[in-house]
Amino acid sequence: METIYILAIVAGALALLFGAYKAGFVSKQEPGNERMIEISSYITEGAMAFLQREYKALVIFVVVLAVVLAAGLQSVATAICFIAGAICSVLAGYVGMKVATRANVRTANAANVHGLGRALDVAFSGGAVMGMCVVGLGIIGITVAYTITKDPTIVTGFSLGASSIALFARVGGGIYTKAADVGADLVGKVEAGIPEDDPRNPAVIADNVGDNVGDVAGMGADLFESYVGALLSAITLGVVAYGDKGIQYGLAIAAIGIVASIIAVFFVKGDKDPQKSLNMGEYIAAGATIIASAVLSNQLFGNFKPFIPVIAGIVVGLTISKITEYYTAAEYKPVQRIADESQTGASTNIISGLSVGMMSTVGPIIVIAIGIMVAFVGAGGSDDALLGLFGISLSAVGMLSTTAMTIAVDAYGPIADNAGGIAEMCELPENVRQITDSLDAVGNTTAAIGKGFAIGSAALTALALFVSYINATGLEGIDVSKPEVIAGTFIGGMLPFAFSALTMSAVGNAASKMIDEVRRQFREIPGIMDGKATPEYAKCVDISTGAALHEMIVPGLIAVVVPIIIGVVLGPEALGGLQAGALITGVLMAIFMSNAGGAWDNAKKYIEGGVHGGKGSEAHKAAVTGDTVGDPFKDTSGPSLNILVKLITVVSLVFAPLFVQFGGKFF
Amino acid sequence: METIYILAIVAGALALLFGAYKAGFVSKQEPGNERMIEISSYITEGAMAFLQREYKALVIFVVVLAVVLAAGLQSVATAICFIAGAICSVLAGYVGMKVATRANVRTANAANVHGLGRALDVAFSGGAVMGMCVVGLGIIGITVAYTITKDPTIVTGFSLGASSIALFARVGGGIYTKAADVGADLVGKVEAGIPEDDPRNPAVIADNVGDNVGDVAGMGADLFESYVGALLSAITLGVVAYGDKGIQYGLAIAAIGIVASIIAVFFVKGDKDPQKSLNMGEYIAAGATIIASAVLSNQLFGNFKPFIPVIAGIVVGLTISKITEYYTAAEYKPVQRIADESQTGASTNIISGLSVGMMSTVGPIIVIAIGIMVAFVGAGGSDDALLGLFGISLSAVGMLSTTAMTIAVDAYGPIADNAGGIAEMCELPENVRQITDSLDAVGNTTAAIGKGFAIGSAALTALALFVSYINATGLEGIDVSKPEVIAGTFIGGMLPFAFSALTMSAVGNAASKMIDEVRRQFREIPGIMDGKATPEYAKCVDISTGAALHEMIVPGLIAVVVPIIIGVVLGPEALGGLQAGALITGVLMAIFMSNAGGAWDNAKKYIEGGVHGGKGSEAHKAAVTGDTVGDPFKDTSGPSLNILVKLITVVSLVFAPLFVQFGGKFF
Repeated sequence: METIYILAIVAGALALLFGAYKAGFVSKQEPGNERMIEISSYITEGAMAFLQREYKALVIFVVVLAVVLAAGLQSVATAICFIAGAICSVLAGYVGMKVATRANVRTANAANVHGLGRALDVAFSGGAVMGMCVVGLGIIGITVAYTITKDPTIVTGFSLGASSIALFARVGGGIYTKAADVGADLVGKVEAGIPEDDPRNPAVIADNVGDNVGDVAGMGADLFESYVGALLSAITLGVVAYGDKGIQYGLAIAAIGIVASIIAVFFVKGDKDPQKSLNMGEYIAAGATIIASAVLSNQLFGNFKPFIPVIAGIVVGLTISKITEYYTAAEYKPVQRIADESQTGASTNIISGLSVGMMSTVGPIIVIAIGIMVAFVGAGGSDDALLGLFGISLSAVGMLSTTAMTIAVDAYGPIADNAGGIAEMCELPENVRQITDSLDAVGNTTAAIGKGFAIGSAALTALALFVSYINATGLEGIDVSKPEVIAGTFIGGMLPFAFSALTMSAVGNAASKMIDEVRRQFREIPGIMDGKATPEYAKCVDISTGAALHEMIVPGLIAVVVPIIIGVVLGPEALGGLQAGALITGVLMAIFMSNAGGAWDNAKKYIEGGVHGGKGSEAHKAAVTGDTVGDPFKDTSGPSLNILVKLITVVSLVFAPLFVQFGGKFF
Repeated sequence: METIYILAIVAGALALLFGAYKAGFVSKQEPGNERMIEISSYITEGAMAFLQREYKALVIFVVVLAVVLAAGLQSVATAICFIAGAICSVLAGYVGMKVATRANVRTANAANVHGLGRALDVAFSGGAVMGMCVVGLGIIGITVAYTITKDPTIVTGFSLGASSIALFARVGGGIYTKAADVGADLVGKVEAGIPEDDPRNPAVIADNVGDNVGDVAGMGADLFESYVGALLSAITLGVVAYGDKGIQYGLAIAAIGIVASIIAVFFVKGDKDPQKSLNMGEYIAAGATIIASAVLSNQLFGNFKPFIPVIAGIVVGLTISKITEYYTAAEYKPVQRIADESQTGASTNIISGLSVGMMSTVGPIIVIAIGIMVAFVGAGGSDDALLGLFGISLSAVGMLSTTAMTIAVDAYGPIADNAGGIAEMCELPENVRQITDSLDAVGNTTAAIGKGFAIGSAALTALALFVSYINATGLEGIDVSKPEVIAGTFIGGMLPFAFSALTMSAVGNAASKMIDEVRRQFREIPGIMDGKATPEYAKCVDISTGAALHEMIVPGLIAVVVPIIIGVVLGPEALGGLQAGALITGVLMAIFMSNAGGAWDNAKKYIEGGVHGGKGSEAHKAAVTGDTVGDPFKDTSGPSLNILVKLITVVSLVFAPLFVQFGGKFF
């Protein structure tokens, strides 16, 4: 076996070991008093119950698809890779969430006993475990699958496994978290008039569970998919562009990124300003990766051509994150304009939020377009198109090289949020809540930035997989002037709209069930409002779980089935058009919805900070309406689109041989 | 000159004569009492003042672009065609609006003196004038330009002229009408508590003017552009597919459609149920066109191949209209679901409206995709791609063949709406308002259907022009697997988002100026509320006019400038990608926004009909919020996107020679 494969596996093992070490650090912390342990156990049980039921449902899906793969493609190896990819994704999600639900109560206790610095350490360590799991399992899985099979076509199965789990994790998690959130808010806060995270609210546990299954497990599965997809694409195209060296360079960047992230984690210290500390960590990881990738490019290829896409990818990622921050943070004009418009009522708040969200697509799209060109031309695509296409996949790998660090920073947010919830429910001293609030505020910014990063990486990954698809089908191109291709592009472009409509109404359906249940408990359980009776938390957890699992089926199937139908009926080139259409509108809609949601959220918080009459004013009421509309935008539909665009390209890539052989014979 | 060219010009002349006859019929009617004449004169003056100022601003734009054309393309003939196209569009808009503003007061008087039947006759006749002007000037302009130059490349200038005027008419008109509407509603109805169309409301005249400049002139310019664009594309592709015969068939269908529409107009009679009568007219026009086109296809070509796309286009148009009706009419589930969701507040109303709008893209997109395939394959594209591409342009011509009738039915709505306004302001008897209301209710349905038709025709026209572009550039295809093409596609896809964001915030800006002015008048003019003092209507008209003209500049320039930049920097193939991207997301966003807006509007009316507590209930308040959000969706941003996608393809087509020679030399 080549040295680089061994090194990649070693880097992956290092990530897992470091993750285990961090998990140990978290477990070692004191979980606090009895009440805290009790509340925390509710959340843990709820989250685990959801994961278990979700995974049970997914087993059926995975088995069916594995059989289809084995039979349809006549490749048992692909089916096995598929199952392995699914298991790795499940593992990363399971472990990440297990640790996150441990870290939350310990963060609350650290804030109580030791103060801000230690609280940050615990919360960030919890996030780091998830990050390390994702990259460790990702790089090991892909490398092992490739070294055994030596056939990139078979390895696509691994990526499909990761994507399938990601889809249901993101969609299901997104529906879960918003159903619980809306239920808790509308009935608890608005109707019953009790504060956020009050233990008398029957949906409060479900709400906190939702933060974990949506923001931790969902996001982790999303980036696991991007990570695996980008590596797969680099392998597929690397081998045709440069032979073994191409594959090695792709894996090496990933390995370098892991080591750089581990080093960077040590620079996040609780004794500094949290935001600066987290930023510092990200910059160190990116900087170290850039330097090492440059050196390696020169050594392997004798020039910097394959390095240019790597730095392009990293710069694209950072720039999109900055643009996202501009459109969603209260310090800048867009959010303040939404707040201003809230003074004339809910409709002007909504119009300006939608307008901000749509406008926020301009910057990221231009950055992506430039990034594509730089990656292609820089890698030498003007002379040899294959080098340029490999460059596009390298830009995705570059952007995702520091995924471990990105996830750590991102998953830290919901852990801090949960810690605040536990502090509230356990009636810890006021200053504890202040500490967790300040951590949470930083977390909100990092979450918005993380969403931007997730979208950008999804765009580049899907593009890289799309390019791999063209290579795999042997098509000379995807010519949108052909009628079946333009038809495919139209249908592909429509899918994100249909998908968003479905996921939004899914949240509505699930939320109304939750509202009914919370109202019922307030009505039927005596003493609940005096704190004398404990609400039936488990019932609410159960409703969110059931509704999420039920509602995720249709959108999930659409994502898998439509590409296959188009590939068979209209042929492989039309399916290429479908992928291009879905990629374009999917990325646009994801940016639009995520940023509009983030902007509404922060416009509300901005007003709550005392502007335009503050809490309780008419402007605030209008802003609350906008925030509620934004919830499914930014936490369900928007993020789910990342998965949709990637999954469509992966499904197409896996079944490509089938379409080439049988597709488009009907006209 | 070939017989067919003479016949086409004769058909056009017939349309103009018939239009003149209908205009005479309208003018012959009694305008009613002095008060009615006075109020009507305010509306006429306001509308004409807007048009004059708009045209004055456009002269600069037209002159500059004409110079650019003459110099850049070294073709004075193209520049002259461009100016002719612009003048024809202006003429159609001017005459159509002049007659519409005459028809409104006469419709009110007919309702007062003669009853429903005559009122329908007058209102529909007013709309028919606009319809006949559009097709008459369109077919004459294109035919004359072609017979003189015998060069389709030069004739594209005519289409560009039509598109340029259309852009500003739609965007400016859309901003005007909504600024006035929101100003009149928010301050007059909500704050001052006076009813709709009350003469004490300073913005009431501006509001009625808005219906004319937005719904009559804007829509007419939109369909004039589609009509001209489709014919141009049929000429461009017809000549390469079949030589002169191809051109002749395209023009013949248009001529047939005109005659069929004139016949159909006679079947719309006031003595029957208005909705049925209008429907009957549309079906007769479509049926006659289909039969004649089939006969002609067999005679000219000895087969039905070129006929299949014509019927495909007509069926696509009718189907999209039906789907639009399903998603926007109160009789069906989607609108009722929005009404249901209004019971839990504004945010659930908004979420369900957005969801309905997004879902409503599915049907039309599938229909368009199938239509494209049928048109291409049916025309013989499987054997010879050129025949198939010609088929796509024929489907656009087919769909637009009955444009005269479609406009007549569509423009009738705002005339009836205005008539109601005049009846209210002049305090005519209650039963007059009932008649105009019943006409208006039918008009709302036809307006929604007309919007669906406008989108569908824009999609097919833009597609046909896109296909012509590929032919004109001599490209072998538009390969989206090339990096510069995918970059172009991303940027093209983003344009409709940016455009919608700009037009929505333009409405916001203009509306807030209007709100300030109306509030000022209520405050500063004593006796306004007792009806003792006349409000300064002209001030409000002026504000809407100025704001609309100011706000339309940036979106207008973007639509023209961005394609040219991309064509020069990234080259003609990337510009093809940009067109494809803009076409896909433009059509999707147009359907989404128009239908969401229509659905919100009718959900509000559905509740006002007595459901969920009726007027004044919490559900109604929530529905009003949704309706206000929907206003710029359905009347400004959505319809403007039709123009955007067509204009981008026309600009690309006109400047194609330039891009082929100089474009994309930078990398």
